[in-house]
Amino acid sequence: MRVVCLAGGVGGAKLADGLQQILAPGELTVVVNTGDDLEVHALAVSPDVDTVLYTLAGIAEPAQGWGIAGESWQVMGQLARLGDETWFRLGDRDIATHLFRTDRLRRGIRATEVTLALARSLGLESHVLPMTDQPVRTRVRTTAGWLDFQDYFVRLRQEPSVFEVAFEGIENATLTPEVRDALRAAEAIVVAPSNPIVSIGPILAVPGLLAEIIAARRRGVPVVGVSGIVGGRALRGPADRMMESLGEESSALGVARRYVAAGLLDVFVVDRIDEGLAAPIRALGPEVVVTDTIMTDAGSRVLLAREMLAAAAWQGAAGAEDRSAGDPAAAKEAGR
Amino acid sequence: MRVVCLAGGVGGAKLADGLQQILAPGELTVVVNTGDDLEVHALAVSPDVDTVLYTLAGIAEPAQGWGIAGESWQVMGQLARLGDETWFRLGDRDIATHLFRTDRLRRGIRATEVTLALARSLGLESHVLPMTDQPVRTRVRTTAGWLDFQDYFVRLRQEPSVFEVAFEGIENATLTPEVRDALRAAEAIVVAPSNPIVSIGPILAVPGLLAEIIAARRRGVPVVGVSGIVGGRALRGPADRMMESLGEESSALGVARRYVAAGLLDVFVVDRIDEGLAAPIRALGPEVVVTDTIMTDAGSRVLLAREMLAAAAWQGAAGAEDRSAGDPAAAKEAGR
Repeated sequence: MRVVCLAGGVGGAKLADGLQQILAPGELTVVVNTGDDLEVHALAVSPDVDTVLYTLAGIAEPAQGWGIAGESWQVMGQLARLGDETWFRLGDRDIATHLFRTDRLRRGIRATEVTLALARSLGLESHVLPMTDQPVRTRVRTTAGWLDFQDYFVRLRQEPSVFEVAFEGIENATLTPEVRDALRAAEAIVVAPSNPIVSIGPILAVPGLLAEIIAARRRGVPVVGVSGIVGGRALRGPADRMMESLGEESSALGVARRYVAAGLLDVFVVDRIDEGLAAPIRALGPEVVVTDTIMTDAGSRVLLAREMLAAAAWQGAAGAEDRSAGDPAAAKEAGR
Repeated sequence: MRVVCLAGGVGGAKLADGLQQILAPGELTVVVNTGDDLEVHALAVSPDVDTVLYTLAGIAEPAQGWGIAGESWQVMGQLARLGDETWFRLGDRDIATHLFRTDRLRRGIRATEVTLALARSLGLESHVLPMTDQPVRTRVRTTAGWLDFQDYFVRLRQEPSVFEVAFEGIENATLTPEVRDALRAAEAIVVAPSNPIVSIGPILAVPGLLAEIIAARRRGVPVVGVSGIVGGRALRGPADRMMESLGEESSALGVARRYVAAGLLDVFVVDRIDEGLAAPIRALGPEVVVTDTIMTDAGSRVLLAREMLAAAAWQGAAGAEDRSAGDPAAAKEAGR
């Protein structure tokens, strides 16, 4: 089953890992947010892409959610001695990734090709694709003014409230042939439990990308999402506070509303703790699956991935039935 | 005594260290070859400048002649795992220097300002100046064809013979205000025992730089050189073989000929082993001082620096006498 997973950083990487473990080699393509990218110490850093790469390669630092396990910090230590700002911490081996990337980008190689080369070098058979080759930079308007995303996220530890989000450069971003082909070949599309605003949001904002997803849905390819907000709280990061300060509901229902409004969702997976939200989410259109969604270990990644693919298979079959019945009203009712 | 030292890498750095130890803080300016510079893994690396910086800061690796003492190699190790070429080895803390430099150069800061900032960060009171702010790249025509300098020097271990040397970009290089001001304020100019062809050569080729040295000589500022070829062999690197394959004599006399032809030399310091060359060198014009020139430890650096400054002081006084005597013939005889 060829699966495309839309993902941000940690949560997305974990689900992608679960999917990779149950799919045949090469069947998984992860399309990753690059709105978090930054240039720091002249290095082109792509945090979500690298988190996905390291997680799929089995070398991710398990606790902190970024970087490589067992890192050393010689470069950062010396940069600090030289008087440079070091609030965006990069481990030594992680820096090798950024040098590999920066060198090739400077020589005109596309971000997609660089990422595929990194994935191959790390021994992956899964395909990891940046959402676009053009630079997109997420910026947030906050109580501290407009901020670059990592300024808000890392330096200010997400303390300011966010009132507006912009994806700088998105108007010049184009759909890559690789993302387009993956979406056209997909038999299921999975939306990871990443931040719906600043992780999944930029991916959907790449011109032409959402249209490919909607075209896939019309062909009967199911889109299965899962909420990264559980019991009203984000599993990680500021999604809950961002939803609130942007005037949306900080809950699985709020996330479902976003995805349904975008035209995404066939099935939404929510945690058992949110069982009470199943009915209002179903009322929006998608089917709802209630299960354990919190990925605390390798086993729970596989279990969630399996639930999502089972729902996709079931929904795909139902979609095919709908189409063979030639009943557009039924298809519409199912949320298409 | 305000001293300007023209220097390449290791030998130049050692002599500069000796000079720094006997001069008052801030009196030493080292003008360093940048023809060896390269871009590798997207990093702007300036090997001779860094060797001088590290040596003056007391953090240079003592044995290999480049890099920082006690380095770790995590970044290189990971780059190798990613499949990148790693024949130009960079230690982790050394990489911090290159990130510091690359970041600032990309933001349009001049190489001179970056180097002065690095020197300050490393706690130096001496001034270290790249010979120019524009990129100059030494290339060599060899038995293996035209090669980038580090390709010849590091990758091919200086094995091919060199038949021609070019300083790519030198026509667009300009004298920096900092180098000009240092030369105008100098009370002595010291030419380090670096490779006369590819270390001192590029410095003298910067348009306008040699003219400033010659103008300084006319004002009675002595130029004191020392041979990096001792007993016919280069103390380090391929200077002897390069001199031979370029049709010059591989000896202190050959080096003196080069410097005299350029219009440089008032005093030339040769090793005791080359005492027999004192007369033929004197016949070219410069005074000759015979002493121990091989810098095996901190003490010998200071001794050589002291000999050179003593010769400069003596020659400076003699030069002043020549001028006060108003005897241009005598001045000419002294090699001017």
